[in-house]
Amino acid sequence: MTTTAQALAEGVLAGDVRRASRLMRLIDDQAPLATDALKLLFTHTGRAWIIGVTGSPGAGKSTLTDRLITAYRAQGKTVGVIAVDPTSPFTGGAILGDRIRMQGHATDPGVFIRSLATRGNLGGLSRATGDCLHVMDAMGREVIIVETVGVGQDEIDIAQLAHTTVVVLVPGMGDDIQAIKAGILEVADVFVVNKADLDGADRVVRELRSNLELRHAIKAPPMDHDTHHRIVRAKAEGKPVEAPKGPVEWEPPIQKVVAAKGTGVDELVAAIANHQKHLVDTGEKARREQTRAMTQFLTLLRDRLLRAGLDRLERERGKLTDVAQRIAAREADPYVLAEELANAAR
Amino acid sequence: MTTTAQALAEGVLAGDVRRASRLMRLIDDQAPLATDALKLLFTHTGRAWIIGVTGSPGAGKSTLTDRLITAYRAQGKTVGVIAVDPTSPFTGGAILGDRIRMQGHATDPGVFIRSLATRGNLGGLSRATGDCLHVMDAMGREVIIVETVGVGQDEIDIAQLAHTTVVVLVPGMGDDIQAIKAGILEVADVFVVNKADLDGADRVVRELRSNLELRHAIKAPPMDHDTHHRIVRAKAEGKPVEAPKGPVEWEPPIQKVVAAKGTGVDELVAAIANHQKHLVDTGEKARREQTRAMTQFLTLLRDRLLRAGLDRLERERGKLTDVAQRIAAREADPYVLAEELANAAR
Repeated sequence: MTTTAQALAEGVLAGDVRRASRLMRLIDDQAPLATDALKLLFTHTGRAWIIGVTGSPGAGKSTLTDRLITAYRAQGKTVGVIAVDPTSPFTGGAILGDRIRMQGHATDPGVFIRSLATRGNLGGLSRATGDCLHVMDAMGREVIIVETVGVGQDEIDIAQLAHTTVVVLVPGMGDDIQAIKAGILEVADVFVVNKADLDGADRVVRELRSNLELRHAIKAPPMDHDTHHRIVRAKAEGKPVEAPKGPVEWEPPIQKVVAAKGTGVDELVAAIANHQKHLVDTGEKARREQTRAMTQFLTLLRDRLLRAGLDRLERERGKLTDVAQRIAAREADPYVLAEELANAAR
Repeated sequence: MTTTAQALAEGVLAGDVRRASRLMRLIDDQAPLATDALKLLFTHTGRAWIIGVTGSPGAGKSTLTDRLITAYRAQGKTVGVIAVDPTSPFTGGAILGDRIRMQGHATDPGVFIRSLATRGNLGGLSRATGDCLHVMDAMGREVIIVETVGVGQDEIDIAQLAHTTVVVLVPGMGDDIQAIKAGILEVADVFVVNKADLDGADRVVRELRSNLELRHAIKAPPMDHDTHHRIVRAKAEGKPVEAPKGPVEWEPPIQKVVAAKGTGVDELVAAIANHQKHLVDTGEKARREQTRAMTQFLTLLRDRLLRAGLDRLERERGKLTDVAQRIAAREADPYVLAEELANAAR
């Protein structure tokens, strides 16, 4: 077991795509071997620049990602892509249509594309995404693009794994769609208005600008360490959080792009580079990496704790289905049960 | 403290809207008092029929919910509505536009509408929704409608809290939107094609029908207890699950509706009643309530375990932010840390 974890880790560190793919499959399957390999890889991570690309369905994220791959390859950088796919919770089958758009890079060894499916529930997706980021990082990929649909809480969690989050909007979507993006707007470092050759592109830019001005007007004062800690802890527990962004110094640029034609992509790459420089210069990069470490650690912890809790529950109270049956029949109280199990972890 | 929990619980059991609202706010804020009150209420739950209404943004769910309220009120039934709103993870501000559409019922004491915001992360939303369902159930609401946007995993989890899940589609949405709904299609008990007076409504019906035929063709054999347990456990841990639906006997009907005009709503109400009868007659209701109990218990357990784990971490290793800093600097290994903490819960 340890030998194989060792072999996997060594393969990944040597940039071996086959071993990396194997490890990512193991991560997806939650194999204990994956954790063993990840432990060996962890100290070799932290070098990649991670770019999140998120937005509504139909915003053209895959085409844009494809253009970004080409741009970074032209700079001589190696690229990794993690495409997070909305899939059935039952069949586990990924929607592969979008991926086909990136097939142009299939023969380039400097590009490594991997799809992650939404499997099961309870936030497993952001854990798997975080683990796969570690693998691509340890492989030595210089730029890693994480592409997600920006609609749910999971997606916002995943967006926060990135150094630079690019939020893609398009003209002509209804107000309801804009509502969905309410949460994602606030994690944007760079806005892209894609399909900017369509009617209404300028309206989207204007709306974004007034949204940003509003945000600017209510921006928070700089945060001390204790405030930061309080907010981090509150977020971890899912409690309401006020003003978590700290000193808002970066003004997210709004870039018009026509991804299908490649228009505006160089400017987008420049905007991402500016953001990278800003994060490094202001020391905000370190804070963002702490947030990332926190998010990854918390999802990992939640996962392990739940599994330990379930083991204990099954040992003490019988099968999980029997427990559910007793709860459904109001013979067992879920609130009391959960507290008893949690007290063991104190 | 206990006195107040007692007072809250007694108020809720007496149908007091003010006390119920207070308790739901406490649930939203994760106050310990809320848990104390929920413990007192739990044995009084299990009587309501819970209807999930879910679908894409812009599908007209709120208007449809409004029509359902009117229909159930005409039957003399008391109604509760939990509207789950997509909101900013930072400001916690709910999008209230949709709620305004239901204001026609504001003066009817037989209708109790409550919005729940997406606050913080780590799946807090489905826990809060489950808890609020218990409150409305204990209040004696005969029909409870849970309205969510059917796009993320959270929403699928929430849909599974319902006895009858109504999935609302509309003509004229792109393929990408259909992709998003991949997971939600499989939890549907009744399909609504809303805005059925628009072009393309028949095409949506045809596509749904072929999707259902495909599902029928690959339907799973009846499940024994051990298979059910294995699947429940795998789902709890977020592992890939095959064929979890068990004997597929119910063929989800497809109802064309024009919610804005009220067309097709009576037929929808009849379809929901048919489904209710089917669940009761086949004993599937009991199984579904177990699944519901399981989902609620697991989100509760995960929540409590994480909080206990964080307490322990802070006691032993210092503040969470310091731990994150050490992880970000690669001085601490998140995989080892998470395992050590989880071992305490074994």
